Amino acid sequence: MTIETAVAALGRMLGDRLSEAPAVRDQHARDEAHIAPCRPRAVAFPESAEEVAEIVRVCAAEGCPITPWGVGTSLEGQAIPDHGGLSLDMGRMNRVLAINVDDLDAVVQPGVTRTALNAELKGTGLFFPVDPGADATLGGMAATRASGTNAVRYGTMRENVLALQVVLADGRIIRTGSRARKSAAGYDLTRLFVGSEGTLGVVTELTVRLYGQPEAVSAAVASFPDIASAVRTVITTIQMGVPVARIELLDEVQIRAVNAYSNLAMAETPTLFLEFHGTEAGVAEQAERVGEIAAEFGAGFEWATKPEDRSRLWAARHSAYWAGRALRPGSAGWVTDACVPISRLADCIAETKADLAESPLLAPLVGHAGDGNFHLAILLDPESETERAEAARLSHRIAERALRMGGTVTGEHGVGLGKKPYMAAEHGEALGVMAAIKRALDPDGLFNPGKMIDANR
Amino acid sequence: MTIETAVAALGRMLGDRLSEAPAVRDQHARDEAHIAPCRPRAVAFPESAEEVAEIVRVCAAEGCPITPWGVGTSLEGQAIPDHGGLSLDMGRMNRVLAINVDDLDAVVQPGVTRTALNAELKGTGLFFPVDPGADATLGGMAATRASGTNAVRYGTMRENVLALQVVLADGRIIRTGSRARKSAAGYDLTRLFVGSEGTLGVVTELTVRLYGQPEAVSAAVASFPDIASAVRTVITTIQMGVPVARIELLDEVQIRAVNAYSNLAMAETPTLFLEFHGTEAGVAEQAERVGEIAAEFGAGFEWATKPEDRSRLWAARHSAYWAGRALRPGSAGWVTDACVPISRLADCIAETKADLAESPLLAPLVGHAGDGNFHLAILLDPESETERAEAARLSHRIAERALRMGGTVTGEHGVGLGKKPYMAAEHGEALGVMAAIKRALDPDGLFNPGKMIDANR
Repeated sequence: MTIETAVAALGRMLGDRLSEAPAVRDQHARDEAHIAPCRPRAVAFPESAEEVAEIVRVCAAEGCPITPWGVGTSLEGQAIPDHGGLSLDMGRMNRVLAINVDDLDAVVQPGVTRTALNAELKGTGLFFPVDPGADATLGGMAATRASGTNAVRYGTMRENVLALQVVLADGRIIRTGSRARKSAAGYDLTRLFVGSEGTLGVVTELTVRLYGQPEAVSAAVASFPDIASAVRTVITTIQMGVPVARIELLDEVQIRAVNAYSNLAMAETPTLFLEFHGTEAGVAEQAERVGEIAAEFGAGFEWATKPEDRSRLWAARHSAYWAGRALRPGSAGWVTDACVPISRLADCIAETKADLAESPLLAPLVGHAGDGNFHLAILLDPESETERAEAARLSHRIAERALRMGGTVTGEHGVGLGKKPYMAAEHGEALGVMAAIKRALDPDGLFNPGKMIDANR
Repeated sequence: MTIETAVAALGRMLGDRLSEAPAVRDQHARDEAHIAPCRPRAVAFPESAEEVAEIVRVCAAEGCPITPWGVGTSLEGQAIPDHGGLSLDMGRMNRVLAINVDDLDAVVQPGVTRTALNAELKGTGLFFPVDPGADATLGGMAATRASGTNAVRYGTMRENVLALQVVLADGRIIRTGSRARKSAAGYDLTRLFVGSEGTLGVVTELTVRLYGQPEAVSAAVASFPDIASAVRTVITTIQMGVPVARIELLDEVQIRAVNAYSNLAMAETPTLFLEFHGTEAGVAEQAERVGEIAAEFGAGFEWATKPEDRSRLWAARHSAYWAGRALRPGSAGWVTDACVPISRLADCIAETKADLAESPLLAPLVGHAGDGNFHLAILLDPESETERAEAARLSHRIAERALRMGGTVTGEHGVGLGKKPYMAAEHGEALGVMAAIKRALDPDGLFNPGKMIDANR
């Protein structure tokens, strides 16, 4: 029972769709985390659920770990095969299998990226909203329970995956639900696999929700005297039921970075970027409401009604990470992911910024403020041990702060290797339930070993 | 190891909060299903999670089954202790523990009913939306993954429970999440327990989402020439992104029943009851849009802008079940619960009505059309074996039809005993995963044995 035997058998099964080439293995050794890479022994490129099942059976028999791979945009090491074995690259399973316009859903293979799905949806009047920034695969996004800028309106992958097809550790292929909008028929396996980071099974098909494209879209920028005023504006907006599509916070450091990077001239103070979806009249009304609220909290409010202004604005928001890194050329970004009840968001950010004021490292902040979720990109010289240690210290203090404030160490990036040390503190006795589930579904620790939870003995 | 020993020990622990009185046991022997009652050996009335944990430990040691009890409004036998043992009445755990206005959430004990929570919310500007008709407890609603008329806008219990406190089969007390709006930290235990019908643990606390009360509410009634036109109106409304709060279908039989029961004079054809939530302008715009769509499909559209008209309308909708039964005095109602992709809803209803046309039994229909979910209340003489058999036959055909059309046998009432025979057909191999989870969390089958799934040996 060896990994070598598994690789040989997989080679016979897959031909040139099993690669042992160093370049391919290197490419599958790292994701976008600040975590050391680890090469898989080989990389498989399956083309069907049945083939995945066959691969799983071979690997199970030979004790060869399997780490699923989308496009490697995970941020906590989820895609790193850190126990070696097989990297299972789902990239060839990239077909949109069905678009059901009347039902507002689509059935896709896991290697379809979110922009590829939206390209296929052109002309249908529908779109898929979940947008984590990177052009991740839908399989990967389901695995990490991804969300992003418009989760405040459209939800995360938790709300937007209707059903999955999954290959289990014994090679069985299951379906976790139907295309019905809701069901009360048994345990919610769909939600169990969403966010399980490839530790319970391999997703081979997804049914996802779609939405009608809004008739009208408008955007606005509001500049605040301080973070607390921006957060109060967000809280009031949501309490009043204004269905904002996006309500993103950027701190003064991030605005400075964006101004420089995108050649803009926004006031360098805490700022909300807003987007409104609806009818023409509805969008105007939403924007007016939020403008009034923001004014009460001392904001300057600026419209971006023209499509080109709106595009420039959201291009600037989307490039925030790169803009941040450009503040310090050659730097790497260590990205944090705290999420707290929104009533604690201003405090959590204030304490975090007090830490930063005493740190030699610069760290622009962006936040999905409507969800209480914010990220720092701590800029560091990747070669400097001292700076890595300082980034780790800051990141650790943010994770502990989020827990102390009744939140979570990860709002949307997931656990992987990076947040695994916090699982006991976050979940207490409930971690034992997760471990029991892992052992029940993957008793030999075949899937993505080392990630999220240590359950297998 | 006997149930008698358990009951004696619980009596010493709980005093008069353990009842063996026949009347109390009778009261806990049945829910609102068409299923034969079964008396528990005793009924316990715990007052805290710690007390529930102590009760669970005693029962686990003595092999005494535990069936949690809310107010007994479940519709598939979930609350019937059909293996005897202990009925665990959560009614004394009925406090609202916290209302967090800024965070739009509340922390409640499981015995709080939805109307009690909304009464507590008076004056905060917030409300809890999930409304299954009955004034169920929130614990029970979480257990059955309840939804109801406004799920199309606000979601079901799946979307509206943020976190739970649960007592496990070994007496451990866990928390399944935080008050953060989203999290990517590990397996989604909240969603696993929501809908588990008391088979995995006892819910002792819930954190639920709240919403700002809409500034304006309006309602409308649209009468259609046929079911298909009504359903097309629903599909188009949702595709266009009109955020209807309620869009309920009543067939001509149900309208006849409602007219008679509530002294109304609606056209006796398939009808949609609609409710709109939003700003004054938003509500007017939504209603206008839907009015245009309905007109395209041949509907007569009638406003109910005055609060008293609206109240009368929704009172009529809420009394639909009783109105239906009044069509045949002395009858019982056998309620079905199919849910299909909305593109199949008109077909599913048409086939169902063809069955009814050939049946001696009358069965008014109401549907949460936006979710593809509809109910018949099959009216039968509860003393007639022939009629029970005919109701069972019709119900069986509806369940099989829902599965054939890619749907589920239960949109919102759950599995319990009534839908258990369909679990294998609906889930296939995935049922084995549910069984593995049940065995992992409740290896001795302590919690609600006999319900949903046979996993323990």
